[in-house]
Amino acid sequence: MPSLSDVMKQHPNPVQMLRNSKIGMYVYPVVAPEYTNWRDEQRAWRDSAVLFDQSHHMDELIVEGPDAEAFLAHVGINGFHNFDTNRAKHFVPVTPAGHVIGDMIIFREREDKFILVGRAPTANWTKFQAAIGRWKVRLLHDPRSPSRPDGERVLRTHYRYQIQGPDAPKIFEKINGGPVPDVKFFHVDWINVGNRRVQALRHGMAGAPGLEIWGPYADKHYIESTILQAARDLGVDLRQVGSRAYSTNTLESGWIPSPLPGIYTGDGMMQEYRDWLGADSYEAAGTIGGSYVSDDISNYYVNPFELGYGFYIGWKKDDFIGKDALTKLKDEPNRKKVTFEWNREDVLKVIASGFEDGVPYKWIDFPQPNYASSSADMVMNGDKMVGMSMFNGYSFNERCMLSLGVVDQSVQEGDVLTMKWGEPDDTEKTSAEKHRQAEIRVRVSATPYAREARENYADSWRTKATA
Amino acid sequence: MPSLSDVMKQHPNPVQMLRNSKIGMYVYPVVAPEYTNWRDEQRAWRDSAVLFDQSHHMDELIVEGPDAEAFLAHVGINGFHNFDTNRAKHFVPVTPAGHVIGDMIIFREREDKFILVGRAPTANWTKFQAAIGRWKVRLLHDPRSPSRPDGERVLRTHYRYQIQGPDAPKIFEKINGGPVPDVKFFHVDWINVGNRRVQALRHGMAGAPGLEIWGPYADKHYIESTILQAARDLGVDLRQVGSRAYSTNTLESGWIPSPLPGIYTGDGMMQEYRDWLGADSYEAAGTIGGSYVSDDISNYYVNPFELGYGFYIGWKKDDFIGKDALTKLKDEPNRKKVTFEWNREDVLKVIASGFEDGVPYKWIDFPQPNYASSSADMVMNGDKMVGMSMFNGYSFNERCMLSLGVVDQSVQEGDVLTMKWGEPDDTEKTSAEKHRQAEIRVRVSATPYAREARENYADSWRTKATA
Repeated sequence: MPSLSDVMKQHPNPVQMLRNSKIGMYVYPVVAPEYTNWRDEQRAWRDSAVLFDQSHHMDELIVEGPDAEAFLAHVGINGFHNFDTNRAKHFVPVTPAGHVIGDMIIFREREDKFILVGRAPTANWTKFQAAIGRWKVRLLHDPRSPSRPDGERVLRTHYRYQIQGPDAPKIFEKINGGPVPDVKFFHVDWINVGNRRVQALRHGMAGAPGLEIWGPYADKHYIESTILQAARDLGVDLRQVGSRAYSTNTLESGWIPSPLPGIYTGDGMMQEYRDWLGADSYEAAGTIGGSYVSDDISNYYVNPFELGYGFYIGWKKDDFIGKDALTKLKDEPNRKKVTFEWNREDVLKVIASGFEDGVPYKWIDFPQPNYASSSADMVMNGDKMVGMSMFNGYSFNERCMLSLGVVDQSVQEGDVLTMKWGEPDDTEKTSAEKHRQAEIRVRVSATPYAREARENYADSWRTKATA
Repeated sequence: MPSLSDVMKQHPNPVQMLRNSKIGMYVYPVVAPEYTNWRDEQRAWRDSAVLFDQSHHMDELIVEGPDAEAFLAHVGINGFHNFDTNRAKHFVPVTPAGHVIGDMIIFREREDKFILVGRAPTANWTKFQAAIGRWKVRLLHDPRSPSRPDGERVLRTHYRYQIQGPDAPKIFEKINGGPVPDVKFFHVDWINVGNRRVQALRHGMAGAPGLEIWGPYADKHYIESTILQAARDLGVDLRQVGSRAYSTNTLESGWIPSPLPGIYTGDGMMQEYRDWLGADSYEAAGTIGGSYVSDDISNYYVNPFELGYGFYIGWKKDDFIGKDALTKLKDEPNRKKVTFEWNREDVLKVIASGFEDGVPYKWIDFPQPNYASSSADMVMNGDKMVGMSMFNGYSFNERCMLSLGVVDQSVQEGDVLTMKWGEPDDTEKTSAEKHRQAEIRVRVSATPYAREARENYADSWRTKATA
């Protein structure tokens, strides 16, 4: 099996490699596109309640053994001092240069057993660190489900569901057969789902209460039907969320799922990692999409401060991978995470080109226009690139296109910038049709997106437009 | 198990029953939403070649036995005099009143064995006729795959693939290992796919050559990979077509897949049928969507003349179900099948409402806005309803929204009419969000849709607009 390094040798640079990947869309697999319709499925997480089936789209990595805690504290930037078994964390590893590799939710199931859930890059990096170190840990990796199972059966280690929305608490109480423990945010407790005892993580989106529950995959149907029956009994409008609506929930909550792992550069351990990673890995087969084209792949990287993860860092730990680099980066003028609100008229102009002859603008597919595993669209202030749009989607709740990304410190909320939409050249990417570039004005808003901001700045479209 | 009759008793009329069904979208199941992207998947059937995986979305009914031919000739309107084993037909049954029940493709595999492939209503009706008659036939019914398998394995009796497009013949020759027999349209012959010998139906869309092949489901992966490898070896841009693009191919070819089965009215045999049909049948659980709301469900029915199937009728047969009614209908002023080309500005107006507060127009979901198993949108000339739009979709090839339907004889190609888009009231349908009605101008075009017509009538938008 060739390695990522071998694949990289076949391309002038890794940007070109990833921009021309033929792997297709990065999808939310197995789950039906829609259970009812994606507009109401979005609406329900704000107005009533939703059931997310998260059993298929994430890798799971189980890390156990006497050194499990010490090992993970070495791999991730997070503080571990307060990490007991009733708590989860947002686990973030970085490279020795301080670049984000990815992120996973980490659960501590026992003193010596952790479960990590998220995209592949963090699982791969953690496996590599176990392979090259001398830690007494056992790892079990259950990669995400196939993107196109085409009728074949799909099995996972665990089912995983999330219930969210203002009416979610009624359902928790019903399935639990009584009041649920008052769990703090990102803490874990046990609840009943019918006759099963399951672990539940207190989660939440944009302030609405939520629980994430998981257990053996064989229980999946029982758990799902018990939840749906509870909602019917209560008369709660609980919507199962399909694959089309699912990924857009992050636009309203403000998490960027898709930073490009900062692993394509660097010597020493990083070179070793690229030799170790397979040619079929996320890192080797994935895609970069978007208008930003740089010969230097490190221009696509982000650091934890830019994503708002600075406060996770366990500075008191003796050491962890990237500590020195982060210590230096800490006081630099890092970019900051924002929400971009896309200008309605410009979006409609792009859509209208799908009704004209000739080469159209890049199609904006609703509700999820991303066409790569990592997206990078240039955000300009005049001729100067001042930011990068990294994950987009349409919100029926907000009635607008939003994206998440990073901007220079000079950029302020309310500023109106210009995003270049679509790629400047033809690539081999199979997920994008031939298209030309458009300019879409974007207004900079807070993350998580707050509608008030939009309304307060309502005049700025006219006064600050840069197009 | 309650019957359709039992379900109907719970509703004031069958229109209200079907307009409020909660079954959700009628989907093209199991097949991935996109393999590359739906724009290029549409483009490929015109420019290069496509592979349709038709293994999952249709019912299959096998009819065999000494009376098979006589039985089917009694059930369908079609002439059977020229129906030998190297031929397929478009099988259409009607009620005794002459209303279309549905349609299936029928293959004659042996002298005494036929395979029917299509939507459920024709399979159900055929089974009923076998049940109430005294025909020496054996039936085997393999219903379509589940709409939302959610990771469970799906098995069928047969795989079924179609290869279409201008580059398709190169692939036929490659997989066959030499020139393929020169099969006439809707005739069947045997070809090789690698080391398998398979039956192939000469099919075609909008003039482009195509073959439909089928065989035991266990061979599915072998057949698919052999076809894909052949295309790679040839350098042909063969696109696998996903579920999002698939159903839109009929807009360009002109077949209406979804007439409402005319089975909700009528006494005698029809009442018996409704007592026989289960409450979980397509007919009982399906949906009517669209702006047309009539208390009389027969207003949604069509007859074979209206769908352009008049020339199928085997008038020389001694008898078949509906013969008397069709004899009378033949010379009446039947409606005619047309393509409606939707006005670009009006479509964009509807889309724009998704970026405004308040209740939006009914969302036009791309490329397939249908939200029911049968659609009926009113097409108006001023205050007078002159037609019904029955199946819609966006064509990236034509860069416009098209729909198929029927219009009064008074309507001429080039006429600009007004379609009411969206429903006048709230229903329980889960596939539609709350919305208000819009008016969309539509230009009447030929079926199959011919772009020349559109261009010849280019001025008529301005001169004949009725809005």
